Order: sequence, then structure tokens, then C-alpha cells
Amino acid sequence: MKIQKQLGTTGYRAEGFIGDYQRLVKDTVIPYQYDVLRDNAGENVSKSHVYGNFKNAAAALRGEDVGDGFYGMVFQDSDAAKWLEAAAFSLALYPDKELEAKADELISLIAAAQDKDGYLNTYFTIKDREKRWGNLLEGHEMYCAGHLYEAAAAYYEATGKRELLDVCLKNAEHIYKRFVTDGTAGYPGHPEIELALMKLYRVSGEKKCLELAEHFVNVRGVDPDYYKKERSARDWVVWGGNGEDREYQQSDRPVREMSEAVGHAVRAVYLYTAMADIAGETDDAELKAACERLWESITSRKLYITGGIGATVHGEAFSVDYDLPNDTAYCETCASIGLMFFASRLLESDPDSRYADVMEQAFYNTVLAGMARDGKSFYYVNPLESISGISGKAKTHRHTLPVRPGWYACACCPPNAARTIMSFGKYAYGESADTAFCHMFAAGEVSFENGMKIKCETEYPFGMTVNYTVEEVTNGAHTLAIRLPAWSRETVISVNGKTSDFRAEKGYAYLDVKPGDVIGLTLDGKPRFVYGSRRVPALEGKACVCRGTLVYCAEGVDNGGTVLGLSLTGGDIVECAAEGLDGIPALEADGLRADDSEELYTTAPPAEKPVRVKLIPYFCRANRGETDMKVWLNNKAK
Amino acid sequence: MKIQKQLGTTGYRAEGFIGDYQRLVKDTVIPYQYDVLRDNAGENVSKSHVYGNFKNAAAALRGEDVGDGFYGMVFQDSDAAKWLEAAAFSLALYPDKELEAKADELISLIAAAQDKDGYLNTYFTIKDREKRWGNLLEGHEMYCAGHLYEAAAAYYEATGKRELLDVCLKNAEHIYKRFVTDGTAGYPGHPEIELALMKLYRVSGEKKCLELAEHFVNVRGVDPDYYKKERSARDWVVWGGNGEDREYQQSDRPVREMSEAVGHAVRAVYLYTAMADIAGETDDAELKAACERLWESITSRKLYITGGIGATVHGEAFSVDYDLPNDTAYCETCASIGLMFFASRLLESDPDSRYADVMEQAFYNTVLAGMARDGKSFYYVNPLESISGISGKAKTHRHTLPVRPGWYACACCPPNAARTIMSFGKYAYGESADTAFCHMFAAGEVSFENGMKIKCETEYPFGMTVNYTVEEVTNGAHTLAIRLPAWSRETVISVNGKTSDFRAEKGYAYLDVKPGDVIGLTLDGKPRFVYGSRRVPALEGKACVCRGTLVYCAEGVDNGGTVLGLSLTGGDIVECAAEGLDGIPALEADGLRADDSEELYTTAPPAEKPVRVKLIPYFCRANRGETDMKVWLNNKAK
Repeated sequence: MKIQKQLGTTGYRAEGFIGDYQRLVKDTVIPYQYDVLRDNAGENVSKSHVYGNFKNAAAALRGEDVGDGFYGMVFQDSDAAKWLEAAAFSLALYPDKELEAKADELISLIAAAQDKDGYLNTYFTIKDREKRWGNLLEGHEMYCAGHLYEAAAAYYEATGKRELLDVCLKNAEHIYKRFVTDGTAGYPGHPEIELALMKLYRVSGEKKCLELAEHFVNVRGVDPDYYKKERSARDWVVWGGNGEDREYQQSDRPVREMSEAVGHAVRAVYLYTAMADIAGETDDAELKAACERLWESITSRKLYITGGIGATVHGEAFSVDYDLPNDTAYCETCASIGLMFFASRLLESDPDSRYADVMEQAFYNTVLAGMARDGKSFYYVNPLESISGISGKAKTHRHTLPVRPGWYACACCPPNAARTIMSFGKYAYGESADTAFCHMFAAGEVSFENGMKIKCETEYPFGMTVNYTVEEVTNGAHTLAIRLPAWSRETVISVNGKTSDFRAEKGYAYLDVKPGDVIGLTLDGKPRFVYGSRRVPALEGKACVCRGTLVYCAEGVDNGGTVLGLSLTGGDIVECAAEGLDGIPALEADGLRADDSEELYTTAPPAEKPVRVKLIPYFCRANRGETDMKVWLNNKAK
Repeated sequence: MKIQKQLGTTGYRAEGFIGDYQRLVKDTVIPYQYDVLRDNAGENVSKSHVYGNFKNAAAALRGEDVGDGFYGMVFQDSDAAKWLEAAAFSLALYPDKELEAKADELISLIAAAQDKDGYLNTYFTIKDREKRWGNLLEGHEMYCAGHLYEAAAAYYEATGKRELLDVCLKNAEHIYKRFVTDGTAGYPGHPEIELALMKLYRVSGEKKCLELAEHFVNVRGVDPDYYKKERSARDWVVWGGNGEDREYQQSDRPVREMSEAVGHAVRAVYLYTAMADIAGETDDAELKAACERLWESITSRKLYITGGIGATVHGEAFSVDYDLPNDTAYCETCASIGLMFFASRLLESDPDSRYADVMEQAFYNTVLAGMARDGKSFYYVNPLESISGISGKAKTHRHTLPVRPGWYACACCPPNAARTIMSFGKYAYGESADTAFCHMFAAGEVSFENGMKIKCETEYPFGMTVNYTVEEVTNGAHTLAIRLPAWSRETVISVNGKTSDFRAEKGYAYLDVKPGDVIGLTLDGKPRFVYGSRRVPALEGKACVCRGTLVYCAEGVDNGGTVLGLSLTGGDIVECAAEGLDGIPALEADGLRADDSEELYTTAPPAEKPVRVKLIPYFCRANRGETDMKVWLNNKAK
């Protein structure tokens, strides 16, 4: 039994900082990505051809010869699904007939590409229907299906329309028949369908969806050689994966035996999300314990200060404990989104602020950094250091581009960021029968299904006061649970203007409320220096600056052209203005700048001059042309 | 015209520190490698099968069916050649009938594997003679030939025996015919034969050797797509190289247009060595200028403090300027050996201590670190930082093994180190008609062909006084030129006990001497802190300790189990004892140790306690079991 559930899709339209981002996604990102999906985004943007793929798949099903009519990655369908999901969330918040018509058109295209037996995947339908389900390792059929289920759930919630939901239920039935009823061996190489089936289950009530999710979670890794056997049974590949890297595809052991977060980071956290969701839904203590171990592995030994995960480009994967290099960090945007998913599911069965703290850390730093401030270019990779001439150029740094591209051939991250921002309410708020949970702080009215309605006023993440006005209390909901972030060294709660005691449990303040009550929260907004454990070699002698959940970085553009040779010397960190960031406040601290030296090595320590180091929020990085960047600076505080 | 030439093979047998290493190579390394080549080195050592390959090639030439009778890398032959070269140098210094008999036996085997037309390569002779010269990119036929030429030159110099020399001249004639007379396009994927042909030319006087060396240097990169065309003209590969990475195989442009050291570091410096040699030999100013630019590129922007080059494992290659990571450094032993070659050739046409300084830096740090102190295990890769749990384990650190293996499947480095140590005199000393050059300081008697004979007494690199006694002066040689290393902030020269002025030019002291003179050199032996330019992000806020040419490192075994959290705080660096290093003196300096923290990130700076940091010479690292190591430590000097 879940202790609490996510907020419904229509329950919350953000204002303030998050509202600005949601409007950016609505007004710019969704239309831009729509153009990308239709190959209308301009010459310099990688082609998508998603529409063409669905049209050609439908034609192939009608028996027409579409030749080599598939373009893109094997998982290209998922770009359409993620766009559709973002559009659904957008429609829930901002009804828009034109957008809904575009979504309906795409849904019809998708429906037309579904085979009679429920199968739905353009790559295999166009290229070779005989190969369906023959390459679970690389084929991404269930990955694409999962994204479609998520879109279907969101679209149904937003519009009440069933077309895509029915397509997905038929597809899930097809998969259930093959892998459960018929007992075909195998499980998806890229987890995703498991967490999506849980969503489909919740909107449809269809028990088979839960059963299928459980099946894929339970069968995973029981035969760790499954993919090697699959490979040797076929004479074709997508990329050439041979199933040898069991950790990469999360097949090294049964999920209940997992303890260390390993392998492809997105695959990992998507899987853990489903595990946590199922564990909560079915009261599976063993599965919950595995999730706890994995959470501990990530957050205690493999997490960047930015909420980034996946330290290495090799397999876009978790590295070994404490290997958290700044300059070569992978930190895929999608991985931090997946970490938010995992955190949110853990939070649902156990409201503990340590999950919400990490969820917020991932969102406000790596996820937001994944998108330019104008919504038109995107980062897949989010390193903590970028040095001109090295980043994007050295072979070990090819993935750390100094400037965001407009789109990617492998375009998983941009639409993932869009859908996450548009569904921010699902992470920010939750509810049980009697309690409304405020996990993250964001302005706007929130309507909980339990009958509580509140209005939140705040300028968070820059303003550190948050006021909740209780507008309605019906149906027995009577408690407001407000997260007390661990980073806030002093948090004050007031009720109707008076500082108030409160019941605190696992990092949440629980307050019984009545209509008209105003609950005020004052968080610690003092910028702070943060240091790494000596176990992390990359952080030796360094410090970074955080304020609230935001991690700051120094960019060359604010610091005399380069961050090379900059160090911090402690003291007060004060707010200041930064140019070209639409009024986003920056910070400034005392520091030193080492003189430049042509000589590689010198016996005289480099001369240093005092400087003021300017720091901007990490999520704002790389918005003002190509420039150096560092989150962690050398620490010379006495 | 060369200004000066290398010392002959028989001219110098070292005593003291280098003498100990030469005896180690003679008594342990050469016999051990002999066992390896014959697959007698034990269960845990990678098989070589070099003898078997030569035998099978000879049998194949006799028309016998040897089936799949080749084992190992395509360049396996070169292991035999490098062993033979080391043995030749050893025989020159320490005549040894038994070793000579073993060498003669191997030479006979090699001679028997030579085809009638002069072709000699076991891989192609055994596998498919039709494929000869069909894959210059990967085939390593000329690489193996080059190593054989070097061995032949050394063996002829040491013993006067011509068998291998004649085999090599016949092979060179075969190659000359094909690539010069017949005008076949192409040049070797791995440079080596060019520098070797110069050696063959010098011992044999055969002009065609010089011409062939020039040919291969001049034709390189003129058609930068040569290897792509070669690849598309054949239906087979060795590894799958496609010629696309022009920098890797040094084919991106004609050599006279090269300015930046790029691509595979060993290939690069082997090529530059030949370029410098030919430029000196033929007074080719344009070629010399290219060498100067490449030297500048390496030493000003791409050189580790240890004399290591090749920052990245990707293609064992140079990275971009200033990208010199400590923990993932490749720094192949062979690359530093090649850098010594390049330096020595530049030095021959231009006696400037900046070349000799780098030559010495490479030798005493990276090259010596390539071999364990007992001569029985070897490093291919020489990083400047090794952290337990990360080095050798993280995917980005798989190449940085914490412990030296006994041998490698790709065993280029161990015999390369052996031959370099045994021919130390060729790098340490040089001569022109009237001058004896002392480029490096090493004890023992030296007989120059110009008639000068000196005795050098020193405990260098630990003792900092060097005394040269002039024993003979004949044939018009009258000047002793002694290098003044740049790292010696104060160098005093005495003549017969009295401090003396001297003529200095380009970092050399020139002294006219007569028999019986004693020239004393007192170098600055004060340990020093060294700092990196701010342009090298990996050295931000760090310092290392050097004394003379030696770079020091901290190992966990001397520092409470780990180097994590250790920093230096300046002050005096004093000599001390280290355990388990046979009396090699260590250094000690004040420092701090940060407390361990289980928490990844903290807002309180980690508490630190004063400690004495113990440092050992880098070349001694990893000789006392698996332990952490750092060359660069965080610098907290006030």
C-alpha cells in the first residue's frame, strides 16, 4: 500500500520560477520540438523523421513497399512519445485546442502504425517484422512502448481521451501474452516499460499491467547470461552489443540481490524507479530493501553535488565508488531525471526528506542545466568543469561540449527535460487521505484529490520564504506536511504570522490546518561553502558554493575571461548581479587569481592577486557563448 | 653534417647507480626476458612464442604446413629484436660467451625465417605470404624490420659478427627495391624503420639505407588519405584500423608541415627521431625547423613533469595542449624512451642542455619506473596518481594498473627499457672531433673515439658532486663539455680542486683539459617544490617535490596507508630513510592530512592534522605491494 501518491496531472500549474519554465516549455520547447519531430527545425538541427517513421510503418502494415523508410535511432519512436507526454502535461495546465489537435493527429498516426496483434514499433515494422522481439538487448521495443504508455497515461489524465490509452493497453496485452502467458524468455535491455506499466495500471486499473511490470522486474538477471544466449541465437545486431557487459544492461543479478548502482545510469534508475514503485504498491519488503541499498550506493558514494549521476562516458555509466571527476563527468540529463523518478517513488512509500532533497538537487541543477534558458538548445552531458581547448576537444572530453547543440541524433534528453518540467507538480506535491505533502517549494495553487487546496507564494529558489495559504479543506484532509530541507541549517515555521512549534518526522513538518490558515516557512538562504570527502580524489583541496538547493559555478565570462587559476579564500558570499541572465541573481566571494605562466612547470609558486570571484547558478551555465566553467574551485581559505 | 655523434656501443660501462641498473638488466632482465621469449617464464606470465614463430616461419618457407603457427601480436617479432639489441649492448659491456651463444642461436633462427627475396616477417610468412606489404597501416612489417636493424647494428658493433647485419641489409635492399626502385606507394603505419635505417647506414655505410629512411620520411602524409585507400583496396584487416585517424598514424600532413605533436605518442617520437637524425645528417634546415616546432609542442605544452608523454589512453596518444591529467595519464614507457631518442638526435646537431634536460627527466622518472626494482615486472603505463579502488578498476582507469604485471601480451615496453638502460652511454655521452660531451652524469670510465678517455665518479642521481678525471687525451680532442642542468639553480665547476670560471654555451660548460686534470661539478641538490602553470587544469592548487632530475611521489605505504587527504605546507624538505627500497633515500616535508569523512559533501571544511609527508623517487613507486600514489599533492603552503 502506498503511503501517499503523486499529485494528479491537472492539480497544479506553477507560478513564479517554475511557472516561467513551464511557460517556456509550453511556448517554446514544445513547439520547437514539434518542428524537430517534423524535420522543420532548420538546417543545423539533427533530423528526427519521427512522423515519417510512423507514416511508413502504417504503410508497411497496409502492405505498401516503404523501402528503407526508417530514419534514426532504433528508439526513435520514444521521441514522439516524450513530446506527446510533455504536450499532455501542458494541456492539463494550459488547455490549448491547437496543441491538442496536433497531439491528436500524432496519436492517430501512432495508432495507424499498430499491428493487428497489438505490436507497435516503427523500426521493426518498417525494417523487418520477422525480427520483432528477437533482440531485446538492443531493440528498445519495450523502451519505446513504455514511453508511449507514459504519454497515454498523461494524455488520458489531461484530456479524458482514450485513443492512445487503448492503443497502449492493446500493446501491453500483446506483450503480456508473449512474455507471461506464452512464457517467452527475456526482459527489456533498457528498463522503462516497468515504470510505465505502473502508470498505465494506475490510470486503467488493469491488473495485467501491474503483473507485467512485476514479471519484468522479477525475471531480470535471474539468468545473467540471457543476453549472451539471445545474441548467439541470432545473426543480426543493431549496434553490436553482445550481452557481455551485464552491468550495462542491468542483467548481472536478480534485482533483489542488487546493492551497488552499476552500469548505464539511465537504465539503472529507470529500473530502480519501477522496483520502488512495485515495492510500495505490493508491500514487498525485500524489493524495498534492495532499493534502499541502491539509493545508499548512489547518494553516499556516486552522486555529484549537482545531482548528476553516471560518472563515465564509457557506457554512460556509474563508475566505481568515489570516482567523480569534474571535467569528464557524464551526468546525463536523463539520468538525473531518472534519479528524480526513483526519489519520488521512494518518497511515496516513505516520506523522508532525504529523498526529496536529492530529487530537488537533481532537478534544480542538472535537469535544468540540460536546457538553455531560451529553451532552444540542450545538454545531454552535464560536467562540473569545462575548459576551453580541452572540453569537447580532447578524446576523453569529446562528450563535454562547451555549447549546447540544438538537437541530438540520440535525442532522449531534450523531450525528457520538457516532460519533467511540465509535470513538476507530480514531484513537488503528493498526498495521502488526510495529508497534503509539499516536497518542493513552488508558487501557485495546488488542488489535492484529498480535498485540500492551498496557494503557495514564494520566489524560491532565490527567495527563501514560502507562504502556504490554506484555501479549502474538505473530505477529511487536515494536515499539511512541509519538507525541511537538510541544507537549511535553520528553518522557521510560522502559523498565521506567529512562529510556531511543529511536529517533525523524517525531515517533514506536519501541521494541522484549517481554511484560511497561512503557514510560513523561512529557509536558510545563506550561501555556503561545500567541501568534498577526501575519498573523492577529484575534490582534493577544492570548495564549491551552494545556496539552498542551488549549486553555483564560476564562468570565464564573469571572471575576466577564464576560470583558470581562480581560487576561493573563504569569507562572506554576497549576492550580486550577473549580466545576460535575465536578472537571475549571482553571488560573489573573495578569491585569488594565479598569474598566467607560459612555462609548464615553475619552481616559484605562481603569483596570485586578490579578486572577487563571481558565481552563477549551475543551471544557468553556458548561456552566454563559449566560456570556461568550474563548479569546484581551489580552496585557499585560511 | 652532425656536430657530434653518439658514443660507440663499447665505449662505456657504467658504475654506480646506472651500473647497478645495467647489472640488473644483465643478470636478471635479459635472462628473464629470454625465458619469456621461449615461454619458460612461468604460468602467470603472458606467452610470447617468439621462438616458435621464427621456427614456424622457416618451416613455412621450406614448404612445410605449419597451420595456424603464429602466436601473438602482429609485431611479435620485435620482442626478439629488442631482446637481441639489449643482449648486444650487454655483450659490449660484459662479454659473456653463454649469452652470445644464445644470441647467435636466435640470429640463426631469424636468418632461417628470411625469404629468398629478403623479406622477413613471421606473421605474414606463416599466415599468408600473399598479404605481404598489403596492410602497411597495421601490418608492422617495417616496424619489426626496424627493430631488427637496430639489433643488427648493436650486435655488429658489440661482436663484429655480420650475420644479422647481412640479413638486415638484404631486407633493407628488398624494401628499397619495392618502395623506391619499383615506386610502390606507401609508408609504415608505425614509424621505426626510419630511425633504424639511419643506424644501419652508420654501421654499414650503405647509402641506400639513408636514402630509404629519407624516402619514408618524405613520402609520409603527402597523400593523407593513403591509408584509407589502402584499406578500401583490401578485404582483410589486422585489428580493423581504417586509416581515418590520420593523426594516430602520423599521416595527416607532410612531415615538414608538422607543428603540433599529435596522435600515437610512440609513433610520433620515433618519427621525429628519424626526422631529427636525417635533418642533422643532411643539413635539412626545413626538416630541422619542423623538429624544433614539434619539440616545442611537446615540452612546452604536452610534457608531464615525469618526462612522460601521451596523456590519453585513446590511441595511446598526445592529447590537446595542457590536458595532462594525473590519474588517467597514459605515459607509455616506450613513449618516454622515444622522447629520449628524439632528444638525443636533436642534441647531436645542436648541443643545447634543454634537450638533455628532458632526455634525463624522461629516463630517470618514467623509463626507470617502467621496470620494477627487481627487474621482473614492468609498467607499460605510468600515471602520476594511483588511487586504490579507482586505478585499474574504473573504466577510464583500466590502463593504470596499481601493480606491475610480469609481462604483457603487447610487450613492447619491457625489452625497450632493457635496451635503453644497457645503452645508457649512448645518451649520456657524445663526441665531436675535438670535444667529449657529458650529457648525463653517470660513474665509470668512458672512452671516446676522438681519443679522450675520462673517468667519472659520482653517486648521482642522489649525490650531487660529479668528478671527471681526464685519463687520456689524444687525436686532437681537448675539450670536455659538461651539461649544466637547468634545474640546478647554482652549479659550481672546479678544476683540480679550485673553483673555476668556464665558457658556457647553451647550457654546457666547455673546458679545455689535459691528462690528469680533475674537473669537479657540484650541482644544486636542494629538494624543491614545483608548481604547474594555471593552464594545466589538473595541477590547479598542487605542488610536487623534485630533487635534481628526480620527481618524487607520496605512496600510501609510507604515509599511514593512503595518500588521500594529504597536502604539502611548504617549508624545508629533508632527506630521510624509506623502508623496503634498498637504501634509496627518501624525502620528508611538512604537510596536513584531512580527516576521513563518510559523507560525500560537508559544509564544514574537513579537519586537518599536521603530518610529515614522506616522498620517494617516482621511479621507485609500486615496489612494495599495492598502495596509493600521488606525484602532485594539494599545496597548502601559506
